[in-house]
Amino acid sequence: MKLATLKTGGRDGSLVVVDQGLKTAVHVKEIAETLQYALENWEVCEPALNDVYSRLNAGGVVDAFPFDPAEAHSPLPRSFQWCEASVWISHLERCRKATNRELPPGLYQEPGMYQGASDSFVPPGSPMVCSDENWQPDLEAGVCVITSDVPMGTRSHDAAKYIKLVVLVNDFSLRRLQPDEMAKGLGVLQCKPANAYSPVAVTPRALGKYWDGKLLNRRVHVHVRGELLGKPHAGRDALFNFPQLLEHLARTRNLEAGTIIGAGTVSNYDMEAGFGCLLEKRAQEIFDNGKAETPFLRYGDSIRIECFDDDGASIFGAIEQVLASSDEG
Amino acid sequence: MKLATLKTGGRDGSLVVVDQGLKTAVHVKEIAETLQYALENWEVCEPALNDVYSRLNAGGVVDAFPFDPAEAHSPLPRSFQWCEASVWISHLERCRKATNRELPPGLYQEPGMYQGASDSFVPPGSPMVCSDENWQPDLEAGVCVITSDVPMGTRSHDAAKYIKLVVLVNDFSLRRLQPDEMAKGLGVLQCKPANAYSPVAVTPRALGKYWDGKLLNRRVHVHVRGELLGKPHAGRDALFNFPQLLEHLARTRNLEAGTIIGAGTVSNYDMEAGFGCLLEKRAQEIFDNGKAETPFLRYGDSIRIECFDDDGASIFGAIEQVLASSDEG
Repeated sequence: MKLATLKTGGRDGSLVVVDQGLKTAVHVKEIAETLQYALENWEVCEPALNDVYSRLNAGGVVDAFPFDPAEAHSPLPRSFQWCEASVWISHLERCRKATNRELPPGLYQEPGMYQGASDSFVPPGSPMVCSDENWQPDLEAGVCVITSDVPMGTRSHDAAKYIKLVVLVNDFSLRRLQPDEMAKGLGVLQCKPANAYSPVAVTPRALGKYWDGKLLNRRVHVHVRGELLGKPHAGRDALFNFPQLLEHLARTRNLEAGTIIGAGTVSNYDMEAGFGCLLEKRAQEIFDNGKAETPFLRYGDSIRIECFDDDGASIFGAIEQVLASSDEG
Repeated sequence: MKLATLKTGGRDGSLVVVDQGLKTAVHVKEIAETLQYALENWEVCEPALNDVYSRLNAGGVVDAFPFDPAEAHSPLPRSFQWCEASVWISHLERCRKATNRELPPGLYQEPGMYQGASDSFVPPGSPMVCSDENWQPDLEAGVCVITSDVPMGTRSHDAAKYIKLVVLVNDFSLRRLQPDEMAKGLGVLQCKPANAYSPVAVTPRALGKYWDGKLLNRRVHVHVRGELLGKPHAGRDALFNFPQLLEHLARTRNLEAGTIIGAGTVSNYDMEAGFGCLLEKRAQEIFDNGKAETPFLRYGDSIRIECFDDDGASIFGAIEQVLASSDEG
């Protein structure tokens, strides 16, 4: 099934079921008011929500209304946990190569993963707000899973069952702040402001052949300033997969329902695939020509992140944002 | 006023007001069912909760019942955000000196801070669960503040007003896992399992002279295996204070109500103060004698973290935990 969260209601928004083609939606307050509640009570809620989804697809729901992605918040408007790895190692290799920095060898042996901000996400159609354009704002196009409760010590071969939903993410990044922060040895914080997620979250079952239990076998189409930045394939070149990321994160602790795990900027070794972020494109330009020509985001610049099925229909809806100095606009 | 959360109820527990002496408590469901709700609606809830607190202290609440810290969860059983800095730089200096590692100079200029796990905290009287004793489990005694909503760009001179509550924390750490994780450049994750907080959270106003708007002017008494490990003073030797930590964290994003900000392991240059964690004591032993004699935590070992007022009464109640291989016991 496909789920979305409308901005109406409280801080956690209002859960709706969306049809397969993203045309109509229906409130499901009697089953679960919020996605967080549904994830905490998945065994009970999932069959009931799935039943609504079947009827919605069949056109048999009288309360259905047109689904407007502009009214959608991120599926979880806030979450108790967002952690991100970087499994498309070609992304890291390119970014480091340009500045002659070695990649820490540990990153090839086990996932590099950090805990990120999850207290208030941005709706997929709202601006990325940045108070200083010179912080080198950048998008990062990625794929994430959302889990139910995961017990400590879960192993990867047993982890797929905890993956309840798949979403796209724009992991908003401030590149200028990143090196100094990382030099302090404690990872990234200020350089990773609030993310936005795709308007629609999709179950592995509804993804069908596009989800193999481990990765999303689709290209992620990324546009910046109206031009194609890349369409890297999320099912290729990944050094680790989502069940392995779950094992990594749950090694020393339980994970609460609603945990969002990202896999990093999608990237392929195939240069034809393009890029999922500006930093990587600029790094390649530096490597090829000695200098970066593509600018980072400036105020008013647009980004768009989306996946399509074989028929060209949007699977998750689009993340469509502009960079803004405040969220007044 | 003083607030606590009982384990009864849902994942967020049930908010109670506790009297000044931690002897009695009263449910406040009609004002706020959970502490998260109270923090999100502080302007409305605070006066009402404070009124209950005054009446409870005067013995004028008929529904009052004995407060049993064993029934308390952490004040926020889970939170949308937990970030920790390390402002007592003598802690970092000692730990590095023992192994001849330089402290990154950036840590003296601005706070080093990481985003930690906040999805499910541990009650203050429940075990620290660790599936491998050889991971070198350690406590870290610290002080934290809990905020209301904080707007992006808040400056330190304007930040104190967002600090609504103060708590103690045991920032549970797995030392064996830490160096390899930090070598990957993305900070700490597996080596920082779920924390426990003091049973009682206290407003700055109720702390009176023990809170100067910036730091807690009290010693934190730390016992391990029944023996005093240290009683470092949380108001001394701090390179940064809490309003400065708020400014640092809010530089690039809004902070949601219920954000918990920790200041790291309390530590003083005065050697008489002892230590707030085993790693630091062991580091000093290595520096003094060439080898560490104090073992890390073993299964069954106890820890106790507490602060007292001038009359010797516990301010926040005690964090009292044992290390366990599972939470069955």
